[in-house]
Amino acid sequence: MVDLRSDTVTRPTPEMRQAMAYAEVGDDVFGDDPTVLRLEARAAEMFGHEAALFAPSGTMANQIALQLQVPSGGELLAGADAHVVTYELGAAAALGGISTRTWPSVGADIDVDQIAAMIRPAGYPSVPTRALAVEQTHNLGGGTVVPLPVLRALREVSEKAGVGLHCDGARIWHAAVADGVPLSAYGELFDTLSVCLSKGLGAPAGSLIIGSRENMARARVLRKRLGGGMRQVGILAAAGLHALENHIDRLADDHARARRLAEALAPYGVVDPAAVRTNIVLLDLSKTTLDAPSLTARAAEQGVLISPMLPSIARIITHLDVDDAGVDRAIDVLGGVLGSA
Amino acid sequence: MVDLRSDTVTRPTPEMRQAMAYAEVGDDVFGDDPTVLRLEARAAEMFGHEAALFAPSGTMANQIALQLQVPSGGELLAGADAHVVTYELGAAAALGGISTRTWPSVGADIDVDQIAAMIRPAGYPSVPTRALAVEQTHNLGGGTVVPLPVLRALREVSEKAGVGLHCDGARIWHAAVADGVPLSAYGELFDTLSVCLSKGLGAPAGSLIIGSRENMARARVLRKRLGGGMRQVGILAAAGLHALENHIDRLADDHARARRLAEALAPYGVVDPAAVRTNIVLLDLSKTTLDAPSLTARAAEQGVLISPMLPSIARIITHLDVDDAGVDRAIDVLGGVLGSA
Amino acid sequence: MVDLRSDTVTRPTPEMRQAMAYAEVGDDVFGDDPTVLRLEARAAEMFGHEAALFAPSGTMANQIALQLQVPSGGELLAGADAHVVTYELGAAAALGGISTRTWPSVGADIDVDQIAAMIRPAGYPSVPTRALAVEQTHNLGGGTVVPLPVLRALREVSEKAGVGLHCDGARIWHAAVADGVPLSAYGELFDTLSVCLSKGLGAPAGSLIIGSRENMARARVLRKRLGGGMRQVGILAAAGLHALENHIDRLADDHARARRLAEALAPYGVVDPAAVRTNIVLLDLSKTTLDAPSLTARAAEQGVLISPMLPSIARIITHLDVDDAGVDRAIDVLGGVLGSA
Amino acid sequence: MVDLRSDTVTRPTPEMRQAMAYAEVGDDVFGDDPTVLRLEARAAEMFGHEAALFAPSGTMANQIALQLQVPSGGELLAGADAHVVTYELGAAAALGGISTRTWPSVGADIDVDQIAAMIRPAGYPSVPTRALAVEQTHNLGGGTVVPLPVLRALREVSEKAGVGLHCDGARIWHAAVADGVPLSAYGELFDTLSVCLSKGLGAPAGSLIIGSRENMARARVLRKRLGGGMRQVGILAAAGLHALENHIDRLADDHARARRLAEALAPYGVVDPAAVRTNIVLLDLSKTTLDAPSLTARAAEQGVLISPMLPSIARIITHLDVDDAGVDRAIDVLGGVLGSA
Ligand SMILES: [Ca+2]
Ligand SMILES: [Ca+2]
Ligand SMILES: [Ca+2]
Ligand SMILES: [Ca+2]
Ligand SMILES: [Ca+2]
Ligand SMILES: [Ca+2]
Repeated sequence: MVDLRSDTVTRPTPEMRQAMAYAEVGDDVFGDDPTVLRLEARAAEMFGHEAALFAPSGTMANQIALQLQVPSGGELLAGADAHVVTYELGAAAALGGISTRTWPSVGADIDVDQIAAMIRPAGYPSVPTRALAVEQTHNLGGGTVVPLPVLRALREVSEKAGVGLHCDGARIWHAAVADGVPLSAYGELFDTLSVCLSKGLGAPAGSLIIGSRENMARARVLRKRLGGGMRQVGILAAAGLHALENHIDRLADDHARARRLAEALAPYGVVDPAAVRTNIVLLDLSKTTLDAPSLTARAAEQGVLISPMLPSIARIITHLDVDDAGVDRAIDVLGGVLGSA
Repeated sequence: MVDLRSDTVTRPTPEMRQAMAYAEVGDDVFGDDPTVLRLEARAAEMFGHEAALFAPSGTMANQIALQLQVPSGGELLAGADAHVVTYELGAAAALGGISTRTWPSVGADIDVDQIAAMIRPAGYPSVPTRALAVEQTHNLGGGTVVPLPVLRALREVSEKAGVGLHCDGARIWHAAVADGVPLSAYGELFDTLSVCLSKGLGAPAGSLIIGSRENMARARVLRKRLGGGMRQVGILAAAGLHALENHIDRLADDHARARRLAEALAPYGVVDPAAVRTNIVLLDLSKTTLDAPSLTARAAEQGVLISPMLPSIARIITHLDVDDAGVDRAIDVLGGVLGSA
Repeated sequence: MVDLRSDTVTRPTPEMRQAMAYAEVGDDVFGDDPTVLRLEARAAEMFGHEAALFAPSGTMANQIALQLQVPSGGELLAGADAHVVTYELGAAAALGGISTRTWPSVGADIDVDQIAAMIRPAGYPSVPTRALAVEQTHNLGGGTVVPLPVLRALREVSEKAGVGLHCDGARIWHAAVADGVPLSAYGELFDTLSVCLSKGLGAPAGSLIIGSRENMARARVLRKRLGGGMRQVGILAAAGLHALENHIDRLADDHARARRLAEALAPYGVVDPAAVRTNIVLLDLSKTTLDAPSLTARAAEQGVLISPMLPSIARIITHLDVDDAGVDRAIDVLGGVLGSA
Repeated sequence: MVDLRSDTVTRPTPEMRQAMAYAEVGDDVFGDDPTVLRLEARAAEMFGHEAALFAPSGTMANQIALQLQVPSGGELLAGADAHVVTYELGAAAALGGISTRTWPSVGADIDVDQIAAMIRPAGYPSVPTRALAVEQTHNLGGGTVVPLPVLRALREVSEKAGVGLHCDGARIWHAAVADGVPLSAYGELFDTLSVCLSKGLGAPAGSLIIGSRENMARARVLRKRLGGGMRQVGILAAAGLHALENHIDRLADDHARARRLAEALAPYGVVDPAAVRTNIVLLDLSKTTLDAPSLTARAAEQGVLISPMLPSIARIITHLDVDDAGVDRAIDVLGGVLGSA
């Protein structure tokens, strides 16, 4: 079985299991878990922020950050394909009362002027914009990377308008590796970031919200209300710490494998390899006779798992648990199905 | 004083006051107000629907309709400049838990294919789209009219996708008059409509939600929770009935005056008269040295009131209480300010 | 027909209709309606507060006041039978995210020590209490009046604990008349009050929120979001002003009639006349063979309308539109049904 | 250090760490984690239900269950001291729009008739009650146990009224051990239960919602929206499974230690040992010169940690990590402080 549905499927390595087995723990709801505290301090430091807070999932990390920045009845601007808008089951509105207005997502192609023009300033008869959110790398954009200068321009826009800026950095590690940008260079541009330990980094679960000490104190309250306060969660934090120390640089291998896969499938007219910058390959089936559920089903019969994201879009993600042989097998199977379609 | 800030400023005519003074009333929360019942029946009939429900404002009528069609945590698609998204203070999210994803608003220029592509079907890992909303006429679009064939195409899209379709018809009367389309031709395309009696039609207050009998029964509960249940509100309904019978056809005069105003100001490079289809004139000041608050303030000093909508957009609306002389005065004053800028 | 279902059924008198017919109006969303401004100023003055704001209903006035005092996720304490808890369809939670904890309602019998003990101070691991709400007169308590000294003790409790105090004063006029307490003596005890013009006072619709200038500015935003912003609503405000000037003192007549009705029905074991302090008479049918819906139905057949509030509780309310003859008729019909049960 | 603040402070035993280290895992968001599936199946079986769902915390398990049973704008009845009402930071209202009405909590002393009388049936003009929630054992009640016959009577009430019944069973294991009642005898009485693995049972984190297969499918969606979807969370589930197999019977030791502690402190007039049924001891300091924060601070100086729950209530909880020597030490230190006050 070659599981390319997501990098979330990664399973802990023996070393990571070891780290969990011997983790020093305490009651983190009381702030007593030393491993969690170390993980939070390490993550804050990596991104050049004062503090961080562990959360059970990327969705919760994002939603806490949004609630920190936007009050109920306030407005968030984000891309129409942003995870916070489309893949968190309406949580911003349903749980936070946050109104979203969206710019058209075209991969990671962010049009800063367009976003600037969408901001509704206070003092006019419309709902005032309170924050902007961007995704780095952009999942539905195919793992694309927003260039640092674009993010800097966006920061200028947000500061001038007096609105907050959040980064959904679930896969920000991939951006750093792909573009050779230090995490702190990203960190300094955002009021809050969320990052995931359980995707490419290979931890079993866990995400972090990163920001100011004051915001993290408020985040603890929001986390408790959402049901994200966990007890001896240093067990999971130990895996996260191990991942931060050991699993970032190796993402370059996943990126190379994704690119190789894209190159092999390019002849079927479903992907432009030049667009593959990190570990995600989107197959656009709209010019084939297959739809995404069919391709998925037929590949699964031969032991290759991928994800149907939309009727004509299937997604492949490379990760820690897929080696070169796995990619070869995926190329064979997917090429076979696409070739016979 | 010439008040062109909005058609909401219209004051009841003597005949309308007469109708209110003699209105037969009852307790409408108990369903006992005969004038309200007549108004609701008349409006339902005009739009070819089973039932209607009185609401204190267009905002409440829209929000009730959205809550009827989209559950908390569900998604609504609408234009980025839609009143339901930007001018109702985040109500859809804050009160209804409704997530909004928006297409770029370019006047009333609706790209049906783009909207169709944005719908997230159920069965994929994203928040499923539950309804679409369009605005007729489009306020921020400058009172533009969505052509009937475009709306029909949108209806096909919504039916095929199994999602609802709502019309924010606050000024739908203007569309009907401008395009010569019967209200029932619009009505049959939508699951719910909201319409306003207090704007161009000149009633002091009141809006209606229009739809199926079943939905209106649910709407009564939602209206009560929102605080829109009123008692002997037949007083206001009488004005609304009078407006429906007497103030629709005359909207053509308001449209002609708006067009005349636009033609007179066109030489200043702030408006294209051909874009003025109904009673709204947007002045785009971005190529002048004035911003909207300055123009507004300087015109007000000379007794002409207009609305700054955005830093570089001012809005003029003609209505029942502004005659030809008022428009002449507005042309003189605004032309003077624009000419000296 | 003798309609004793509620004092909300009152219809405007000829003088009140006259006041509405000639009301000077403007666009109240722009703050331009002179009659609304006069009504708000008059109400604020009567209760010794800085400002007031018109709302379409008592439910909206209450909910705006609660949202002013309690943020989403904060706690309100109120009686279990309070209108804001049980008769507003869950609005505090559904629209404001406000958590309610309730003390047992036993009429207007407020146990101040019990309430003080329920307050959760900040700094402990529980949801902090942010405000208390009381109802004057108490509808489900049978129109009972909370004595001024009890309210003063409650004020002391709220100040000491640093939590807000709201009065649902839909029928506070009745309390003032029954106990001979000036409205300002009540007003000074509360951070916010809501009062209704459309119940005993006989206006067709309308309520007011009363409080500080700062809170009323915030209340305007909340009212807009809830859909309570109306335009030339001076029409309704004129009725309210007329009611404030002319219909308060006469409530004593309604109280006398309610007492007379209770005395006449006391022999059937359904009511203690001594408990009837204002214009509400609750019939407790639990010791009869009738339930409230049956009594209601059988009285209605003979032209007397009352309200079933709970399976064994029916409610009678006297008001402006019921004279001595109407009460005589109600006594005959209800006595007849109760006597034959 | 003797940590009696809560049984949540329990740290995994070596055997439990072993179970975690070798846990077979998969991506539980995709339903692929075999250990989670085994834990859910085991828990469902123990309580005689069809299905169960893992959640990161007891708060989330409760809130998901409440959202399953009560729609936004619906009403939940619970005790005023219930965890779901007072210790989840207003989550029911803020996240679920759920209105709460509360009966007075007096330990676990549930007055079934009083609750029955509080239920608002549909068809009357009040918010209809949709569910009842009880807590077993009752935390703020001092770990008291609701007798099985009382729960059975409550079930009859809920069925007759057609409303749901939820059990906050965070410490239901203690009830089962204290009263010798099988878990399935509790399980069959409730539509949903939440149970915690991380308190007395000693797992590092994790709770379960238990109910019908249909409800658990809906619960997965709610869990995702709340941010409770975790990936290879079989790591934690393995600890939970170990706890279910090995740590239930031994709770009797914790109960005995709590009773011994209460007996030793009884002479200071702060606790009635007869009220101590499980592992919780509440000290009522209202008749002493100490408040809870002072007692807590002074005991902490001597290495004994307890929790101030309210200004005059301190809480002690015995658990897996406190042995007889620890209890002796706590008795010495707390007795010393109380004796010198
Ligand atoms: Ca993983
Ligand atoms: Ca909310
Ligand atoms: Ca008007
Ligand atoms: Ca909500
Ligand atoms: Ca009335
Ligand atoms: Ca534990």
